[in-house]
Amino acid sequence: MLTSVLVHSPATLSNLGCGFDVLGLALSAPYDTIRLTRSSTPGIRIQHLDPYGLPTDPQQNVAGVALQALLKEVPEAIGFDVEISKGIKPGSGVGSSAASAAGAVVAANALLGNRFSKMQLVDFAMEGEALASGARHADNIAPVIFGGFTVVRALQPTIDIVALPAPELWIAVVHPQIELKTSDSRKVLPKEVPLGLAVRQWANVAGLVSGFLTADYDLIGRSLDDYIVEPARLPLIPGLAEAKTRALAAGAIGGGISGSGPSIFMLNRDEATAQAVGAALGGVFAELGIEFNVYVGPVGAQGAYVVSAE
Amino acid sequence: MLTSVLVHSPATLSNLGCGFDVLGLALSAPYDTIRLTRSSTPGIRIQHLDPYGLPTDPQQNVAGVALQALLKEVPEAIGFDVEISKGIKPGSGVGSSAASAAGAVVAANALLGNRFSKMQLVDFAMEGEALASGARHADNIAPVIFGGFTVVRALQPTIDIVALPAPELWIAVVHPQIELKTSDSRKVLPKEVPLGLAVRQWANVAGLVSGFLTADYDLIGRSLDDYIVEPARLPLIPGLAEAKTRALAAGAIGGGISGSGPSIFMLNRDEATAQAVGAALGGVFAELGIEFNVYVGPVGAQGAYVVSAE
Repeated sequence: MLTSVLVHSPATLSNLGCGFDVLGLALSAPYDTIRLTRSSTPGIRIQHLDPYGLPTDPQQNVAGVALQALLKEVPEAIGFDVEISKGIKPGSGVGSSAASAAGAVVAANALLGNRFSKMQLVDFAMEGEALASGARHADNIAPVIFGGFTVVRALQPTIDIVALPAPELWIAVVHPQIELKTSDSRKVLPKEVPLGLAVRQWANVAGLVSGFLTADYDLIGRSLDDYIVEPARLPLIPGLAEAKTRALAAGAIGGGISGSGPSIFMLNRDEATAQAVGAALGGVFAELGIEFNVYVGPVGAQGAYVVSAE
Repeated sequence: MLTSVLVHSPATLSNLGCGFDVLGLALSAPYDTIRLTRSSTPGIRIQHLDPYGLPTDPQQNVAGVALQALLKEVPEAIGFDVEISKGIKPGSGVGSSAASAAGAVVAANALLGNRFSKMQLVDFAMEGEALASGARHADNIAPVIFGGFTVVRALQPTIDIVALPAPELWIAVVHPQIELKTSDSRKVLPKEVPLGLAVRQWANVAGLVSGFLTADYDLIGRSLDDYIVEPARLPLIPGLAEAKTRALAAGAIGGGISGSGPSIFMLNRDEATAQAVGAALGGVFAELGIEFNVYVGPVGAQGAYVVSAE
């Protein structure tokens, strides 16, 4: 029986292009590192090996509440000792809370002989999202659990997630160090959308899913545009329009806001292009005098995974 | 050089499930039969070999205006003699005008050595739709020209159609003989849609496209639901809700209004199920005392095609 596992749990892109609240993509980096050790002492004890001052009370920690939801379905009297080292900066818009919550339940499931389905793990991990943002949502959780490209088709009456293979893609993400509250990002969303615009949006969703499934990069590029959410959030992220323009000039397929921002992602055909695009993205924020981080890496085909176990 | 071709041009489902204005599917029957003969006398002469009293003046005929648009791009001084036998009843909601307009330009292209691309043929044939409905739209034209399953991603700034293979599906269509004007069908559409409902709709669009591309029949069934347009049109088509209920009970995967109605389509895994579903659909309208036609057949993988040429 395993007693301890080490999991890498990656950042993810939610609200991918036109797919607000629905489409997600797993990255391979950055990632959180989570060590979970099985204990005969019931309860969850969390230690954070990172500088962000995140709460360690299990009731106030996204991994803690996700593990509590999982333990409710476990008849054995066991507990977990949890060590989390966050590679993903909180508040960056690339699924920091989802990585910790989903990575923790992936680790727990490995310790428990993989008795839970991926759909159940999504259900447990969403408790972390509920704690972090006030709403049970799966758009970052799904790509962490399944890897690759995911469609959150429905959460009610049952969780329905479609996991799809992604073509080879390299992703450049820039995280400008500006504070952007999720509540502010949500406040600017329109309550109602003209039908014609909604139709254009789901035409792009159809094109984007087709492009991913047929590895048609040009189609992906033509279909990424978000007519509804990104225009509303454009004023909240200085440099966004310029960053996209320069990234496209550097060869990116297309991109947009990651999650509810402030990070910006761009999809690319190969690593060399992604590196050039990452540099172009960084250049925009350097000129604006805004600190930033750039990440470049391939799609995370497997999502969160067990690196070692004993 | 060919002088005469005979084309079969099939009925099509537009507004497929959740994919209002975007998703389409070609049937294999019913179909229009179109004979086009090349003439050294410029101009278009149309004869209708059917009982519907459709106009034969080329300016007033959907095939006529589509052929005129095509001839504008032909430098040779030629004309066409056109014989149309409509297998698709006008006004049924399964793309009657699209079949005639698109079938005519497919025939003309064959006579001209296939010099035009399919995207150009869509462009020409949309003139027929503009005549029939007042708007250049491609949701029925696209599946006639490309066959199978189609996404009309955009019409502006350029026509962008994604042609995708469909899995094996058998389709049952019932056409209740009630008059339903396209203008009335359009009048009930909401001008604005709550964002949350639009998100649910494009989540289904993503699921439906995924289901078609991975031949996942259960996913197709879960994803077909249209939350926006069908509820608005439900009162216009007596028997619709009951027809869907009975079709699902008879084994259908799912379905909905075809085009803007009054026809109703249901997708099925195999021919036997489709026949049973067709009978169930017909039964509803028989009980209501409404005359109806039922069509059952497989997806039309090739769309309009040349049956014979000389």
